[in-house]
Amino acid sequence: MDYYPGSIKNLIRDLARLPGIGQKTAERLAMHILQQSDDEARRLAGSIVDLKSRLRLCSVCYALSDDTLCRICNDPSRNAQVICVVEQPADLASIEKAGAFDGRYHVLGGVLSPMEGIGPDDIRIAELVNRVETEGIREVILATGTNVEGESTAAYIANRLASKPVTVTRIASGVPMGGDLKYVDQVTLKRAMESRHGI
Amino acid sequence: MDYYPGSIKNLIRDLARLPGIGQKTAERLAMHILQQSDDEARRLAGSIVDLKSRLRLCSVCYALSDDTLCRICNDPSRNAQVICVVEQPADLASIEKAGAFDGRYHVLGGVLSPMEGIGPDDIRIAELVNRVETEGIREVILATGTNVEGESTAAYIANRLASKPVTVTRIASGVPMGGDLKYVDQVTLKRAMESRHGI
Repeated sequence: MDYYPGSIKNLIRDLARLPGIGQKTAERLAMHILQQSDDEARRLAGSIVDLKSRLRLCSVCYALSDDTLCRICNDPSRNAQVICVVEQPADLASIEKAGAFDGRYHVLGGVLSPMEGIGPDDIRIAELVNRVETEGIREVILATGTNVEGESTAAYIANRLASKPVTVTRIASGVPMGGDLKYVDQVTLKRAMESRHGI
Repeated sequence: MDYYPGSIKNLIRDLARLPGIGQKTAERLAMHILQQSDDEARRLAGSIVDLKSRLRLCSVCYALSDDTLCRICNDPSRNAQVICVVEQPADLASIEKAGAFDGRYHVLGGVLSPMEGIGPDDIRIAELVNRVETEGIREVILATGTNVEGESTAAYIANRLASKPVTVTRIASGVPMGGDLKYVDQVTLKRAMESRHGI
């Protein structure tokens, strides 16, 4: 790295800290930023600072937001009686992209994981129970992952909500659309068979 | 993108403009930056601004530099009588990494390319000729690429320097070290045969 002037070296080092970006890619990106106009580079730097200073969590659903209330919680056209529970903000983004849901969300901020010492008090389960009790919710859709942690988190929440006057559902598991059966793993196939339904 | 708050959207848009970074990667990087500490994110932004404001070209060899004179031109232990001519700063970095050269450099800033309208006056050939005339240079090593443009640029420069009291050499072409002959392309093999030497 000694053949680069200090200012490039610093940028390469900082870029190489990002996930999926190694030394080579960081060098290529730094060279590109060097060739960008001053305006473009300043805008990128500004966006980073902006993100850290402006972004916060929605006070109701804990989604990422520029304001106290996120755009979805602020939207009167969304169904306020249905909450979709997800692990992380990125999961919320995926569901919104699919356009498959018109209710509101609740971002847990993680999953239960005894191995990593993450218990019910470390993710936003109490906040969810509180919303169910106070917001007149009719349905809670559990959209945590379909791995061990996601499944057990869903089971735990279903149990916590069992005594409340609310319908608790879980997103369906099965063969992905467009999937070829011979490439689908056994656990998924087993689940797809068990969850079969009339057509 | 509407499911992201404005500040994330802006950063994703700016990151996706970088080479090799698509929408998905930009989203992942933005999410990572979001989770970084304020200090880390600010340092990355600062490095970008710093690069654009501090970095300039060495006044002698046109390498990237934080000062008027680059570290190599400023280093009395480097051989001042040999100049290695490269296309771009990244090429200089590659040669320095290899540790194969102890002279100085001359960065052309491009190659001759009639197709793209780049002629001898658009890259730093006159500056090279001037250095050869004034700096007491004994050898000029042409280390432009081995593609059509690089080869013709090397030929052009060799021609321009033919009347000067300087040795002009070209880096060797041939089979890459560690290479398996069956994977080497025909043009390279032909060149390797033509350039064979006694052992």
